[in-house]
Amino acid sequence: MRDFSRSHEWLSINTATVRKQWPLDRIIDECAKRGIRAISPWRDQVAEVGLDKIAALLRATSITLSGYCRGGFFPASDAAGLKAAINDNIKAIDEAKTLDAPCLVLVVGSLPGALSGKPVHHDITRARNEVRDGIAASLEYARKVGMPLAIEPLHPMQAAERACVNTLEHALDLCDELDPDETGALGVAVDMYHVWWDPKLQQQITRAGKMRLLAFHVCDWLIPTRDLLNDRGMMGDGVIELQKARGWVEDAGFAGFAEVEIFSGHWWAQPGGDVLDTCIARHRATV
Amino acid sequence: MRDFSRSHEWLSINTATVRKQWPLDRIIDECAKRGIRAISPWRDQVAEVGLDKIAALLRATSITLSGYCRGGFFPASDAAGLKAAINDNIKAIDEAKTLDAPCLVLVVGSLPGALSGKPVHHDITRARNEVRDGIAASLEYARKVGMPLAIEPLHPMQAAERACVNTLEHALDLCDELDPDETGALGVAVDMYHVWWDPKLQQQITRAGKMRLLAFHVCDWLIPTRDLLNDRGMMGDGVIELQKARGWVEDAGFAGFAEVEIFSGHWWAQPGGDVLDTCIARHRATV
Repeated sequence: MRDFSRSHEWLSINTATVRKQWPLDRIIDECAKRGIRAISPWRDQVAEVGLDKIAALLRATSITLSGYCRGGFFPASDAAGLKAAINDNIKAIDEAKTLDAPCLVLVVGSLPGALSGKPVHHDITRARNEVRDGIAASLEYARKVGMPLAIEPLHPMQAAERACVNTLEHALDLCDELDPDETGALGVAVDMYHVWWDPKLQQQITRAGKMRLLAFHVCDWLIPTRDLLNDRGMMGDGVIELQKARGWVEDAGFAGFAEVEIFSGHWWAQPGGDVLDTCIARHRATV
Repeated sequence: MRDFSRSHEWLSINTATVRKQWPLDRIIDECAKRGIRAISPWRDQVAEVGLDKIAALLRATSITLSGYCRGGFFPASDAAGLKAAINDNIKAIDEAKTLDAPCLVLVVGSLPGALSGKPVHHDITRARNEVRDGIAASLEYARKVGMPLAIEPLHPMQAAERACVNTLEHALDLCDELDPDETGALGVAVDMYHVWWDPKLQQQITRAGKMRLLAFHVCDWLIPTRDLLNDRGMMGDGVIELQKARGWVEDAGFAGFAEVEIFSGHWWAQPGGDVLDTCIARHRATV
């Protein structure tokens, strides 16, 4: 297992972590200043500054991506919606290529309309079928251009609104179905916030193996957790055994970045520099 | 599948649903008045009125139990704590016998101290081992006196504080280990609020079968859910496909009560009679 205690060369910052403080170009500058070698940006943050400008900034600072956030949200209420979702994923794949991302992260979606409070139906099995078909269609294009897709299982508390894939086992079942030869075109993003509770976590990480472990995300589960979406903790402030889990993914062959992704009203209210400095310190101490 | 639309003979009220409105003796009276044939009371509600008085009231009203809440909370920080937890479970088993409950529901516990905000360690694997050993020790006594134990998997968002058993599959693995002959002494309580999201739900309900399906709880998952503990919905107000799931448990052999258990700031603020009347109406319309 790699020693993270003396450097942060394997730290990546998911840029949602400081999204309320800075626009993406400033985030890249602040990361570069601190020797942070990788980020994972969100599409809306990229669009706000401009895709080409961000691509140029990344080249200028030698900062690479640990992933691109995000594709997905496949289920829809009708055929036109399903088609629009595929088209949007193809656009996301193109952007990921422009930014030279190692993978496009998929938050797969669930009951259409639920995110805005009005689900048009309650049939999660239908949503799961549409997710499978949506990934299959996107994968066809992703293979052509060489952009791996990483299915991110989300915590079951987000099963209605954001993702109907909620366990690593389910994500890997999809990988087996859609990419049985383990070509590397389809894999998973293991975000510890979403999967830490799973008694089958270690077993499924081993099952995933090097070819399918495309991303590893860290933060912490706070006690108590006061919000289902925006109360994630800084590494070390909660109960997730991050080092143990990193040992499992590394034993399985993963050798990439540990990406810090914290949605948190608390941390969004702190100065961005303090947040990044804390990420560096905790990455060394607890990841 | 039984037709619930024209009667509520298979409705049970988990008495936490109106715990802020009434003491348990009044709850029993109000249920009897409405032709509700079963309840599932909590130990503290029973203790407040008195065990013998509640037993007498149940006999007088012919109201039976669909379960007794609750045993469990096995993990502890030291040997004395583990022993105290077993003793408390034995006491709960005796109370359940006095009340002629069909099973004692187990909320198994997790990281010791987490419920009060200060976990003494973060090792969920250790907690899971202590849960297995605690159930094994309690089961020995439960078998002797003839009180089935029902492991209730809790939603993964409660994995740190309340239960480190979060899937029906994990609960059934424990049943296989501790009661391999499926004697009926150990089974599961399927609370739809906790397990509705699980892609393996139908498969695991079938696996459980008649001998291990000891209780079936209903309420609903609201969109959005604003609190991790006390924002459960009335049946029909959320996204859980309750009738589909009741079909599954009945296909597997379950023929008992559908127990309504709603922890909700909203419903606790309504008049108790309105809550019970709404439970009856929704039980007929949506369960």
